Amino acid sequence: MKAVGIKKSLSIEEKDSFISFETPKPEPGDQEILVKVKAVSVNPVDFKVRQSAAKDKELDEPKILGWDAAGVVEAVGSKVQLFREGDEVYYAGDLKKSGSNAEYQVVDERLVGHKPKNLSFEEAAAMPLTSLTAGEAIFDRFNFRENEGRDQTVLVIGGAGGVGSIGIQLLSKLTKLKVIATASRKETEEWCLNHGADVVVNHENLVKSMKEKGFEQVDFILNFIDTDAHWDAMAELIKPQGSICMIVETKEPVDLNKFKNKSVSLHWELMFTRALYQTEDMERQHEILENLGVLLNRGTIKSTLNKTFKGLTPESFREAHKLQESGKSIGKNVISF
Amino acid sequence: MKAVGIKKSLSIEEKDSFISFETPKPEPGDQEILVKVKAVSVNPVDFKVRQSAAKDKELDEPKILGWDAAGVVEAVGSKVQLFREGDEVYYAGDLKKSGSNAEYQVVDERLVGHKPKNLSFEEAAAMPLTSLTAGEAIFDRFNFRENEGRDQTVLVIGGAGGVGSIGIQLLSKLTKLKVIATASRKETEEWCLNHGADVVVNHENLVKSMKEKGFEQVDFILNFIDTDAHWDAMAELIKPQGSICMIVETKEPVDLNKFKNKSVSLHWELMFTRALYQTEDMERQHEILENLGVLLNRGTIKSTLNKTFKGLTPESFREAHKLQESGKSIGKNVISF
Repeated sequence: MKAVGIKKSLSIEEKDSFISFETPKPEPGDQEILVKVKAVSVNPVDFKVRQSAAKDKELDEPKILGWDAAGVVEAVGSKVQLFREGDEVYYAGDLKKSGSNAEYQVVDERLVGHKPKNLSFEEAAAMPLTSLTAGEAIFDRFNFRENEGRDQTVLVIGGAGGVGSIGIQLLSKLTKLKVIATASRKETEEWCLNHGADVVVNHENLVKSMKEKGFEQVDFILNFIDTDAHWDAMAELIKPQGSICMIVETKEPVDLNKFKNKSVSLHWELMFTRALYQTEDMERQHEILENLGVLLNRGTIKSTLNKTFKGLTPESFREAHKLQESGKSIGKNVISF
Repeated sequence: MKAVGIKKSLSIEEKDSFISFETPKPEPGDQEILVKVKAVSVNPVDFKVRQSAAKDKELDEPKILGWDAAGVVEAVGSKVQLFREGDEVYYAGDLKKSGSNAEYQVVDERLVGHKPKNLSFEEAAAMPLTSLTAGEAIFDRFNFRENEGRDQTVLVIGGAGGVGSIGIQLLSKLTKLKVIATASRKETEEWCLNHGADVVVNHENLVKSMKEKGFEQVDFILNFIDTDAHWDAMAELIKPQGSICMIVETKEPVDLNKFKNKSVSLHWELMFTRALYQTEDMERQHEILENLGVLLNRGTIKSTLNKTFKGLTPESFREAHKLQESGKSIGKNVISF
């Protein structure tokens, strides 16, 4: 089969930062499905792996990136129960395994949902990784239940990014929380409001911007952008006994004591934890994607797809990575094959 | 009234590290009660405040320490609803206010419980601060409900200390969790087992000691002793998606990324948060102490009182602080007036 991958960790400006190559079509294990990939999306994890996986020496075999896909089930393993041949599916998958930037991919059925029928493959491919991240953050880390949160407020740092765009929608549709999102440009501010934010504040001077809009403290903070940069602001803005969820690793050791007097809870969310550690509740990702599918089909939640690139080619991936790395990307960038 | 306090932050070896003095009897505010104090207990917060509150210059007025007391209500404020004159009470109180090492003290009624009738004032005075800390950690930070936790395990770091001694009891009586406690001496190991620990491990080489007893990872960690010292061990021992609660501030900035791949939740617990920030749910401390009172009266939970000193005198407090500072203290040290 055809695939796009990397042999060296190169700057995205270099022509060989992605290469096209042939590799054997994979075979599904007992609890895996083989998917013919129709569209994939790009996330920060893609360029982080691209920049680090082959830094020291060229790889013997090219590495296939991509952890967000929609496609059609071509074959199923002997113990697969949730899917059959011909099913349309969407999933993020497993960071330890070969990615989705290829004609075919195998993936554990417990990490996969049925693609919402009313969405195109491109619209569906935009959703899994970010929705799993936001969904796990809100419902598994914060332990929120639907329709909770009346008279409470959540601050979403990075409202217009991939995770923010679906996070805001889930919060506004499934909880009673007042949703404050951060953005710093006219374009991203509008995007946040269109996706369900009640208020938009500027993250360049977060505490001041919050005060100007009449907010001193919030019950919850979802930081989807930069943990270090907003560390002190989070300590100031979180209510006593409040909860913060972070998804971006810190660059430096941090002063945890800033949160002690308020008895704050700090949660890490990594969407790959369940697959990485093969946790007993791995099938929770199937459940999240199935529930999300219902909401996407009904139009309660809309796909965060913003830009589509065409073709399983090094050029498409270079363009998509370049945009993702710029930090200016809004919503999701998809590549359709 | 008579009180014992400090004017300077001095080594506990110095005679004037505590002084005796006269000061006006306080008057209760609207929602406060005036308590005739019968017994108090000593916690790490006492020597931390003693060592830091008057470091740079001598105070104009002596500062009264002590945030754990049992006594009798002598008068109530105009809006007090939970107590009346003559009630026997126990409480930890408010770190911002004058402490309990005096003949009388005023305290917000929402922070106070009725003293369990079957306990002496000394046995009761041993309990509030540590029980509120352990109770809030388990039931408010971890959000545990009674009888939950079947097939799950909790590691209590510092099992024989004040908070550990009541924490182990609450866990073993009110949850279904398997309780592993740490201790490093024969005496403290027995204390932990007597207070309900299922297993005791040595915290001097925690990961190795856990493995030797057949435990690789746990669902919950309560670190009541030293956050920095056990940071790496906690990262290794916590299960993916597990929760950790800490009560001791870190000495250095910490590497938070160690917990990211496992999507771990890290909770701070400070028993004074509710009073410090006058949170809406302050009365939760009344509720915790009332519930605990029922368990103490029934004998389901036993007082963690281990050693009693006599008299509202500088000498008693010097002895009690010396023992507390040594780090060798087991259970609780009380001073009865």
